[in-house]
Amino acid sequence: MGTSARRYYGAVEAGGTKFVCAVGDETGRLLVEDRFATSDPVPTIATMIATLHRLAGGFGPLTAIGLGSFGPLELRREAPCYGHILETPKPGWSGTDIAGALAREFRVPIGFDTDVNGAALAEHRWGSSQNIEDLVYLTIGTGIGGGAIVGGRLVHGLMHPEVGHLYPRKHPRDADFAGVCPFHGDCLEGLASGPAIIARCGRSFEALPPEHLQWEIEADYLAQLCASLVLTLSPRRIVLGGGVMNQTRLMPMIRARLQHWLGGYLRREELLGEIDAFVVPPRLGAHAGILGALALALHAL
Amino acid sequence: MGTSARRYYGAVEAGGTKFVCAVGDETGRLLVEDRFATSDPVPTIATMIATLHRLAGGFGPLTAIGLGSFGPLELRREAPCYGHILETPKPGWSGTDIAGALAREFRVPIGFDTDVNGAALAEHRWGSSQNIEDLVYLTIGTGIGGGAIVGGRLVHGLMHPEVGHLYPRKHPRDADFAGVCPFHGDCLEGLASGPAIIARCGRSFEALPPEHLQWEIEADYLAQLCASLVLTLSPRRIVLGGGVMNQTRLMPMIRARLQHWLGGYLRREELLGEIDAFVVPPRLGAHAGILGALALALHAL
Repeated sequence: MGTSARRYYGAVEAGGTKFVCAVGDETGRLLVEDRFATSDPVPTIATMIATLHRLAGGFGPLTAIGLGSFGPLELRREAPCYGHILETPKPGWSGTDIAGALAREFRVPIGFDTDVNGAALAEHRWGSSQNIEDLVYLTIGTGIGGGAIVGGRLVHGLMHPEVGHLYPRKHPRDADFAGVCPFHGDCLEGLASGPAIIARCGRSFEALPPEHLQWEIEADYLAQLCASLVLTLSPRRIVLGGGVMNQTRLMPMIRARLQHWLGGYLRREELLGEIDAFVVPPRLGAHAGILGALALALHAL
Repeated sequence: MGTSARRYYGAVEAGGTKFVCAVGDETGRLLVEDRFATSDPVPTIATMIATLHRLAGGFGPLTAIGLGSFGPLELRREAPCYGHILETPKPGWSGTDIAGALAREFRVPIGFDTDVNGAALAEHRWGSSQNIEDLVYLTIGTGIGGGAIVGGRLVHGLMHPEVGHLYPRKHPRDADFAGVCPFHGDCLEGLASGPAIIARCGRSFEALPPEHLQWEIEADYLAQLCASLVLTLSPRRIVLGGGVMNQTRLMPMIRARLQHWLGGYLRREELLGEIDAFVVPPRLGAHAGILGALALALHAL
């Protein structure tokens, strides 16, 4: 094989609602992509493998595969359950060996991490946060998740960040809502995810008019999440993605409420006059997730 | 100078209540130490410099000096205010160029960081968390602060962790207490620091009997802080120090309430059966702060 031979990488974004599979290259270009709805683990994993084979068929063997998954995940390579999805609110999926299934089938290096750690890596490599060594990527959709890069490296410790399960203070107009998280009730995911909006308002966020009170409550909760991140991970940028953020009224309200919750304590221009560059949308937009998986494939080598 | 020549390092722990100055060596041994009460910045800094000169006099020139200070601090070397204390609740101290004062006087490398980042480094190097690359050190005293190491490195991003200003949910038996933080009222520092205990109970924590309800409230707030850290920085160990932790009833109550707040979501043995090794006291005890400053001096070279 000459040095000019092109290499192809597989990418899988494993979400609670849908799976996206793709083949891409090391420049962050997606050459082909397909998606399907998430069902039970066995048929979903079979479809994932068949889809990757089909997509790769047009190009050649895959050099590596990146898998960004909903979590929580076992990411410690020395652990017996490395590659598994752990106890998860997603019914039926706890204990699924998702990375192992790919490794056994394709026998190439598998880059495995949370979907949001992958998306953080993609925004860092190709998107909104190039040259920013400390950032958090949040997705607000079926669930609420956050990936984090500190000092240029993905955060892995005992586990990985699970910021969707922080508890915000209840909004005064939301005192009676118990939340929908099966583990915590009214944690952030329980109060501000897509399913939480349906439970509170009786309809999906896509159907809510921009002037609905829901958006003020939503912005307040997401701003509390951003404030907690500023005070712990100390990012230089927070990237807010996911379907719920398609409501464009949210972004400026979140920035204003973040300043409210910080209470003038951290007098950094980045958090004051320059806050529009501190809390930003993903530059990779809806592709942050699948490009995250591609970035994980490159990271695996 | 021969290779066997001994090197001496200065160390300053700049606290809101007292300053500790010391001279030590690269093995983490403190050779001499002195302390004095914190007053206004000008006389305090003059005493700090005079004390260091006096202590060093018995040994020889200092190779470097480490300064661990209460915060928030400007730690970005490229910033015009590098080395300054920023806007702080401590009256009179906002804007003090504390590291610059040392650098101008001694003309040696100055290792400068938060007192708690220093203590985290000392526990990592010589104490409870050797070989643990992801840890948080918390101090619960005049204020509440946390230092963090992620992937073996101190966390610095836009600033540094400021976890004492996270908002916990109010304890049901504490609903009427407004808190004492001048910026946030009832953030963690406002609800669970030494001054908060005095404001709520009318006496210092040293004077409270172990069976006092205060300790249950205190443990609940500190457990919420630990849960927030697990979900963001993902440490493999949390070290709890500071004067308030001298009440030995607290530690087991905090561990139990941490499990309560995590709600069984993260099913890691470290957070379940092995939690006694996850939330621990500092092995360096009351010396964690000044040894942190010594570790910062070594870190500066």
